[in-house]
Amino acid sequence: MTDTDKKKIAILGSTGSIGLNALDVASSMAGLVDVIALTANRNIEVLASQIERFKPRMVAVGDRKAAREITARAESHGTEVFWGEDGLIRAARLEDADLILNAVVGGVGIAPTLAAVRAGKTVAIANKECLVAAGEIITREAANSGSRLIPVDSEHSAVYQCLNGEKASSVRKIVLTASGGPLLDMSAPEIEQVTAAEALKHPNWNMGRKVTIDSATLMNKGFEVIEAHWLFGVDADSIEVVVERKSLVHALVEFVDGNVAALLSEPDMRLPIQYAITYPDRMETRVKGLDFEAMGGISFERPDYERFPCLRLAFDAIRSGGTVPAVLSAADEVAVEAFLAGSICFGDIYRILNEVVAGHGRQEADSLEAVMEADAWARRKAADLAGEAARRG
Amino acid sequence: MTDTDKKKIAILGSTGSIGLNALDVASSMAGLVDVIALTANRNIEVLASQIERFKPRMVAVGDRKAAREITARAESHGTEVFWGEDGLIRAARLEDADLILNAVVGGVGIAPTLAAVRAGKTVAIANKECLVAAGEIITREAANSGSRLIPVDSEHSAVYQCLNGEKASSVRKIVLTASGGPLLDMSAPEIEQVTAAEALKHPNWNMGRKVTIDSATLMNKGFEVIEAHWLFGVDADSIEVVVERKSLVHALVEFVDGNVAALLSEPDMRLPIQYAITYPDRMETRVKGLDFEAMGGISFERPDYERFPCLRLAFDAIRSGGTVPAVLSAADEVAVEAFLAGSICFGDIYRILNEVVAGHGRQEADSLEAVMEADAWARRKAADLAGEAARRG
Repeated sequence: MTDTDKKKIAILGSTGSIGLNALDVASSMAGLVDVIALTANRNIEVLASQIERFKPRMVAVGDRKAAREITARAESHGTEVFWGEDGLIRAARLEDADLILNAVVGGVGIAPTLAAVRAGKTVAIANKECLVAAGEIITREAANSGSRLIPVDSEHSAVYQCLNGEKASSVRKIVLTASGGPLLDMSAPEIEQVTAAEALKHPNWNMGRKVTIDSATLMNKGFEVIEAHWLFGVDADSIEVVVERKSLVHALVEFVDGNVAALLSEPDMRLPIQYAITYPDRMETRVKGLDFEAMGGISFERPDYERFPCLRLAFDAIRSGGTVPAVLSAADEVAVEAFLAGSICFGDIYRILNEVVAGHGRQEADSLEAVMEADAWARRKAADLAGEAARRG
Repeated sequence: MTDTDKKKIAILGSTGSIGLNALDVASSMAGLVDVIALTANRNIEVLASQIERFKPRMVAVGDRKAAREITARAESHGTEVFWGEDGLIRAARLEDADLILNAVVGGVGIAPTLAAVRAGKTVAIANKECLVAAGEIITREAANSGSRLIPVDSEHSAVYQCLNGEKASSVRKIVLTASGGPLLDMSAPEIEQVTAAEALKHPNWNMGRKVTIDSATLMNKGFEVIEAHWLFGVDADSIEVVVERKSLVHALVEFVDGNVAALLSEPDMRLPIQYAITYPDRMETRVKGLDFEAMGGISFERPDYERFPCLRLAFDAIRSGGTVPAVLSAADEVAVEAFLAGSICFGDIYRILNEVVAGHGRQEADSLEAVMEADAWARRKAADLAGEAARRG
């Protein structure tokens, strides 16, 4: 195999949790994959070592200062350095890239996804915000350009795998599983006052801090419901969330004939990442299969929408549509940050989100500008509410 | 939709358990399916009422006497009557049939499948013997003619659905589930002396008598392992059997990357039958989906090859190859019949099979003649052994 036969991949957000896993997968597929672009925000040290190892054609970093810091070390490997949103977008539509893996965290991931989609790229989406906040625009533009969106979240990858070979009209219901997070069995008063340290103890998955807190509130599952709505074209009534504590079953798809497909695996992010890279093929991994006899029982429970009301906000946001999901997503970034900083309590997260959404004047989400405006409004509003909550103590 | 757009189906074995379910499915798909041929052995009354309802172009019955009995009632509906193997084969290769559903019970189902396959038909296979005894020939001829084989067994239909859209090279392991049958928790001495009435009490499935006894010995699961070997081109080491007591998970497929697809549904034979008819599409059924929260835990257990040694015979038969699976299948028909007739005890079934296989001089199974010769030898040998066991009491 020559270099030109290799799949050329750009990894946006290469120093985050998904990015590191993606480079681990790329290493294990060394003969088949060529990493041609990497981006990071400010983690210059890790990015520098990635440049040394993968010798990408280009990197992009968060700002001019970071660009200055890394330039000397990048240039010695023939790697060009860019920065800011322009840098991200350049990586996202790199001419001969076969796959753009967007693992950027937060709303900053929306613009590069849109750029990649408009360029007709195949985009592996690990950034939640682009579908939660801008799902309408991104799926519309993807339909226009013929760009393929492959999900990297374990749940959506599972749905994608279950739907492989099936027609959209064959689907009756999509069922996303939730581990339930670290607070699943706590009472409402306990949840109200849980500390960041407790909320960060995810039972099954080792992820970034923001998404781990979102797993504790089940807001993460709610965002996944919104993503599933856009990715698979199903309405809120055709999406169900069930708790499966072992995180072995990642999703199920019920077909119109009553058959139900499920996708199981060890909880290991390298699996959906590799699937996104090899799709529609599969490749041997070192990840072991399941030991069916050792796994014990698998069972499904209804999530408690009273103790975890953030999940309800997500279903309501799909039904409201327009800019409401974007507002929910942006407000959540601010609220979770305030919680992690210790300035608000766990229960404040929901109250802030609920109040931001209630106070939002819904607009159509048919342009990136409309989404970004709603996003900015929500951040200000959430910051105000977080400030009030902090003062109340 | 005009009549010429309807899918034209021939149902071989229409008065058996699968045949009745197939006609139930055909009725529910009335506007889409045209039943153009039916066959039965001796159940003339049921066949007559089916003729009245579905007005097939032709029927075939077991012998000349049965043909005589039904002719008057068939002709009044414009239905031609044929009989014997010629009749079955005529139905199996009916010129404009889109799908041949072979639900004939026993070795008599092999020749019509082969005829249909050679005619390039799409064949929905519910007859176990054609793949167990003649899998090598049938899959080879199907590859030659381009005939598609769609399994109707719930387990193989589940595997087929899990593999839809996947490449053969992506499969690491096929896992067939077994309910475990009615004797799962009995001790070896209890199993030895179990009565036909006890062995016929299947916990989840309502099936014919022969297959229900085969479920009790797990020989049925063993035959399914052999069928999976031929249908999906996997060797014995890549097939696993696990017990799943609720019969909600019908099969799992582990892919080379460590992802595992599973197919679940209510245990209802109409589902795999309809899937075989609608493939690659799906159609709404009245079968309800799964209630994930009500279903309780699902768990997988290793089957006990000591108490259920028939399962081991099947894996060994794949490894031996040639005429050995045919011999196992033919001997089992005789042994189960003797058990149901009350002339041998339950434990004798395995002992007879084991002795027949051990005494067989393996031949290549590359022609129907070789298979039929081995089949006939095995029946004589099994009958002899059953006679001896009966005399011993």
